Amino acid sequence: MKIRFSKMHGIGNDYVYVNGFTETITDPAAASIKVSDRHFGIGSDGLILILPSQVADFRMRMFNADGSEGKMCGNGIRCVGKFVYDMGLTNKTEVTVETLAGIRKLVLYPGMDNKIEKVRVWMGVPRFSDREDIPDLPEKRFPVTLTAHDRSFDFYCVSMGNPHAVTMVENTDGFPVDDYGPEIQKKPIFPESVNVEFVQLVSRTAIKMRVYERGSGETLACGTGACASAAALMRLGLIDRKAEVHLLGGTLEIDWQEDGLYMTGPATHVFDGEIEI
Amino acid sequence: MKIRFSKMHGIGNDYVYVNGFTETITDPAAASIKVSDRHFGIGSDGLILILPSQVADFRMRMFNADGSEGKMCGNGIRCVGKFVYDMGLTNKTEVTVETLAGIRKLVLYPGMDNKIEKVRVWMGVPRFSDREDIPDLPEKRFPVTLTAHDRSFDFYCVSMGNPHAVTMVENTDGFPVDDYGPEIQKKPIFPESVNVEFVQLVSRTAIKMRVYERGSGETLACGTGACASAAALMRLGLIDRKAEVHLLGGTLEIDWQEDGLYMTGPATHVFDGEIEI
Repeated sequence: MKIRFSKMHGIGNDYVYVNGFTETITDPAAASIKVSDRHFGIGSDGLILILPSQVADFRMRMFNADGSEGKMCGNGIRCVGKFVYDMGLTNKTEVTVETLAGIRKLVLYPGMDNKIEKVRVWMGVPRFSDREDIPDLPEKRFPVTLTAHDRSFDFYCVSMGNPHAVTMVENTDGFPVDDYGPEIQKKPIFPESVNVEFVQLVSRTAIKMRVYERGSGETLACGTGACASAAALMRLGLIDRKAEVHLLGGTLEIDWQEDGLYMTGPATHVFDGEIEI
Repeated sequence: MKIRFSKMHGIGNDYVYVNGFTETITDPAAASIKVSDRHFGIGSDGLILILPSQVADFRMRMFNADGSEGKMCGNGIRCVGKFVYDMGLTNKTEVTVETLAGIRKLVLYPGMDNKIEKVRVWMGVPRFSDREDIPDLPEKRFPVTLTAHDRSFDFYCVSMGNPHAVTMVENTDGFPVDDYGPEIQKKPIFPESVNVEFVQLVSRTAIKMRVYERGSGETLACGTGACASAAALMRLGLIDRKAEVHLLGGTLEIDWQEDGLYMTGPATHVFDGEIEI
């Protein structure tokens, strides 16, 4: 069966988006494996279905490239906001989206052509390893000092639902992320492995970040990693409660409100297509 | 401007194909860089335009992912054959295609649905380093023994227009191609670097091959590499003059006729799309 899709990305984190109101995919896990292949398929980090919801304006289901279902994706959900508005599924600029991590409210910002340019989304409350019991981050210190290869790092461990270890470096450009990332992930204090963020302080309102993700290695962007990094440096008083995070794939703005962290960033449409599934 | 395209691959070597009879791309080098990006673009090994020709049925221009123009691509030209037939640009099953490496004749094999399944193409005459003066392969021996890391290899050097160094290994599965490939490429006897092929003899009519390409590292498939490897083993009398080459991305059949090598292999359509260029 032929289905229509759109390819979109949030600062380089790219998914195949399918309108589940009009298209039917009987086995989305298998479809995600097939379409995600970068040589034999469409090529993406996974598949995101936009579906009707009983409890929100829309429901999103996201499948990773290996077919596993993900709970939520900050870069992905921004594109869901752009998709539903640009495709005419809604004319509201505040929409709610049901995910496996709960309902998320999105604020959509249309550009001059009345297409969405950026989206703001609540990303949850950061939990710090010294203040809460986090099974993924059992070491109750902030920071934790760890040695990898020849070098000692202070890691600030933060959960955004998934575990992050944030450390500061002089300069992220040219930093051997591939070298240190896997070494840190192997440390026994991270029983479920960890996403490792290397952060450079630029100013009171800007940081640069590179990330070595669980399962993926270095990626162009990680929304929860940007939140964890910003939250750690905000708690340390090194940056303001509203700051830009510059990643390899683009820039996100993180602001910390009473109810948690908000992420604002671009959502980009690349092309539309039709594929036999 | 919006253009229509098809994404196709020849055993994993994937390009964006554009019908130049109906679509106009003013700067194909820039367009190739843009569309080839696997996160921010369509994602491909490059862009191939199908154009009218003064001297053949069609003309193909191919651009690599870095925007440079290529002369010819064995896996790409098979998809050109499928494209012109399936899109109704011809109803012939023998077509000629003008390339920067000369005119190539294709034989198209339609399947049950009258769409092309595989294509046969003349790949040229293999030139062996001990028999001809080849600037890229100046060492006039066959084989040349080289040591890389801890190990000695006999390399059979063959030019298919581009230089290849073919060596035999016990088992290509799990062979550390990434480790030995770059070491071999650096050897002073390959002044312009070299494509390195690691070949396992399976039977008189089948070999397995993995390739470490110039500029790309290990790839899923290399048409000229399959030809060079088959030609070397055919000359050595180890395999018949018609044999299958099993690559990571799929299987090619190589046969050696009086006028040179012919390659037969699949051409696969993945999806159609529309993108703003």
